[in-house]
Amino acid sequence: MAEEDNGVELNRLIEENDLTGIRLWLADHPPYRIADELARMDARTAIVPFRLLDKDRELEVFEELDPVHQQEILVGLRDSAFHELLEEMDPDDRARLIGEAPAKIATRALAGLSPAERKMTAALLGYPEESVGRYMTPETVILHRDLSVGRALEVVRAKSAEAETVYTLPVVADGRRFAGTVELSDLVRADDDTPLKDLVDVLVPRVRATEPAEDAARLMQEANLVALSVVDSEERFVGLLTFDDALELIEAADSEDIARQSGASPVAGHYVAASVFRLARARATWLLLLIVAATLTVNVMQAYEATLEQVTALALFVPMLTGTGGNVGSQSATAIVRALAVGEVRVRDLPGVAWKESRVGFLLGAMLACVALAIGSALVGVTIAAVVATSVICICIWAATIGSCMPLLARKAGVDPAVVSAPLVSTLVDATGLLIYFSIARMILHI
Amino acid sequence: MAEEDNGVELNRLIEENDLTGIRLWLADHPPYRIADELARMDARTAIVPFRLLDKDRELEVFEELDPVHQQEILVGLRDSAFHELLEEMDPDDRARLIGEAPAKIATRALAGLSPAERKMTAALLGYPEESVGRYMTPETVILHRDLSVGRALEVVRAKSAEAETVYTLPVVADGRRFAGTVELSDLVRADDDTPLKDLVDVLVPRVRATEPAEDAARLMQEANLVALSVVDSEERFVGLLTFDDALELIEAADSEDIARQSGASPVAGHYVAASVFRLARARATWLLLLIVAATLTVNVMQAYEATLEQVTALALFVPMLTGTGGNVGSQSATAIVRALAVGEVRVRDLPGVAWKESRVGFLLGAMLACVALAIGSALVGVTIAAVVATSVICICIWAATIGSCMPLLARKAGVDPAVVSAPLVSTLVDATGLLIYFSIARMILHI
Repeated sequence: MAEEDNGVELNRLIEENDLTGIRLWLADHPPYRIADELARMDARTAIVPFRLLDKDRELEVFEELDPVHQQEILVGLRDSAFHELLEEMDPDDRARLIGEAPAKIATRALAGLSPAERKMTAALLGYPEESVGRYMTPETVILHRDLSVGRALEVVRAKSAEAETVYTLPVVADGRRFAGTVELSDLVRADDDTPLKDLVDVLVPRVRATEPAEDAARLMQEANLVALSVVDSEERFVGLLTFDDALELIEAADSEDIARQSGASPVAGHYVAASVFRLARARATWLLLLIVAATLTVNVMQAYEATLEQVTALALFVPMLTGTGGNVGSQSATAIVRALAVGEVRVRDLPGVAWKESRVGFLLGAMLACVALAIGSALVGVTIAAVVATSVICICIWAATIGSCMPLLARKAGVDPAVVSAPLVSTLVDATGLLIYFSIARMILHI
Repeated sequence: MAEEDNGVELNRLIEENDLTGIRLWLADHPPYRIADELARMDARTAIVPFRLLDKDRELEVFEELDPVHQQEILVGLRDSAFHELLEEMDPDDRARLIGEAPAKIATRALAGLSPAERKMTAALLGYPEESVGRYMTPETVILHRDLSVGRALEVVRAKSAEAETVYTLPVVADGRRFAGTVELSDLVRADDDTPLKDLVDVLVPRVRATEPAEDAARLMQEANLVALSVVDSEERFVGLLTFDDALELIEAADSEDIARQSGASPVAGHYVAASVFRLARARATWLLLLIVAATLTVNVMQAYEATLEQVTALALFVPMLTGTGGNVGSQSATAIVRALAVGEVRVRDLPGVAWKESRVGFLLGAMLACVALAIGSALVGVTIAAVVATSVICICIWAATIGSCMPLLARKAGVDPAVVSAPLVSTLVDATGLLIYFSIARMILHI
């Protein structure tokens, strides 16, 4: 819990305006910890410790921040510090910052860059948002296939200062055509006069710069790559996606999927720093759609109002049945959305998945029906309990089947399967589940 | 979509028993792709292409598989192949496999190992499950702080064949006390006679081997580390957690959180390979608890049965109100569970979070109340609609507050916050929401 105290301490130092104390705290903590504390403060407070950082650590801390917080810090800096910071950033981080910043900051940022850095940034900004091109680094050491290991190591040594990573080295043939990669560890290990060709992994995966960045990150995870080679449409090498960006992409994608699963849009930036209004806005759209969709349940209830008036006891089990149906449907939907995200299930598995989940639904339904029968019998008698228990089985089969098919159908239609959120499934299952319940009630009770 | 066809093709080749065709397919695909296809087959089918792999690729493919599938493959191998494979595995992967395997396989596996490998595996198995110790690799190149860069590079070259990674190199003082790390890229870049000391990052984070592996993986992500140093209780270096294990740990942790959020236990292994019974079992426990908890809703409905008989129209809005309350509560709970998982929120933020979420709930409630008022007025008249609208506001405030507090209270109690699943919050909000609804109805309708 020492970590928790640190944040409190920094806040206290800032409040007391104890500049020496702040400097000591900063010197004692690694950049990612400092960035974490800054992200929890409002922008006016965060700028105080940021300005007290050494020049070289300033950049390290800055690069650990989200684009949202980077913008806030930038706004608080004088022109010279502003431009210096941007000039020294990694081109991919800079492109993302500029791509997400308001036009005013973006223009000011681009204007201050040296021609070389501006060109590199402009090239990255030319790729579509959320594509690999936006996240890759063009600053790499490229080796020609015909080099020897000794010569290759010389190239690495000479050029490594400009490169973001030298652990996975792209190897190219003439015309910058991608020929595979070689690991720095293999170079270090090999004899100097070994031909580089012998060490190249030619089957190593590569991606196009225009492909979705999330897919590329998941590929790195699957294939255990510390860096993934990115090529253009003519198979020419253009950059590397590095593991730290992949980790960030996967965390962001998972956060997004998790938010979507609860029917909310993802909120960029730190939770603590997000305003009440921004949080509400991220959740409002789906809630509005869902409450309108829930009108269906009112309609179904209204259609069976006569039945309800005859047997009021039926109403008692409505929340339990809609709740259970929603739970079973959400479980199936959540499982399939995740299986799709990590690549375990594909669209063509739809019939198999539906059949499997309907059987899972039956098993769960049969088990829950026993409980419902017991509870129902104790509270309102065996006949109504039988209606409830039969409904539980049918609703569970239905909920599991529909909950599992919807994400696959969404993917087939080209929509992010994560929009098939638990609340969406619950709401749909609520209305159809009530239909099932009242139909069964009428059949068994002969009304 | 070329990737999707590959799998179909391999299955066809196996069905036709076309061994040459299978060999060609295997030679054409990288290990992670082969492993992915094997994971989708049942064990009896998967063993066919596995046996056709070259000796050196066999290990690579095997290491890409989950422990569940590794076991299945092992069972199908003859003794010599079985032992050879295990002997050559990375010690951390092997420890995990043996730790999860049934006693019979584990004994057979340990018995076949060479004394050195057995000792290493036993040491890793001595750490608690899910701790860093189980996932770290002890096979690293360790540098003494007093070396020069040139001498350090010689050590790396001489020992790198045994090491799983040489990109981040642990540096130690006398007695193996951890002193920081140095990056291989910095070594390659520096002059041979630079003292190693000058390049060591002493602020680099380290973790104890007994700490939870997930926390260590998230730390690597935050601090952008390609490998994290692991120390024992006396700050002696014992191993490295590498980025590929971190990626896997984060994916597994997110999958687990996502499953828990829907009220299911995580299912190990591939979705397609999981049996109906295993899937049902993973979801059954929570569903049972929740349907029992849902008895509360039946009780509340029963307590207000007289009110319902007087004004049947009130029943019509029960599914809509419970649904909306559940949705708002789940959104808050999901947001806080995620914020806790990625370290954006801490237990001490509880009062701030509760106050923020209650305001978010009010904003959302006010918006949804307008919709409810419109729908209600159109369907059953203004008075009932006013009851429904007022209830929506109160339920939303209540749901958002309780949904956000529960994960924080769970963490405070030392329970995984992810057990505060969307279905759990929905079920609790269902019963309390009905209480709110009927109380407001009685007040407004004077019954």
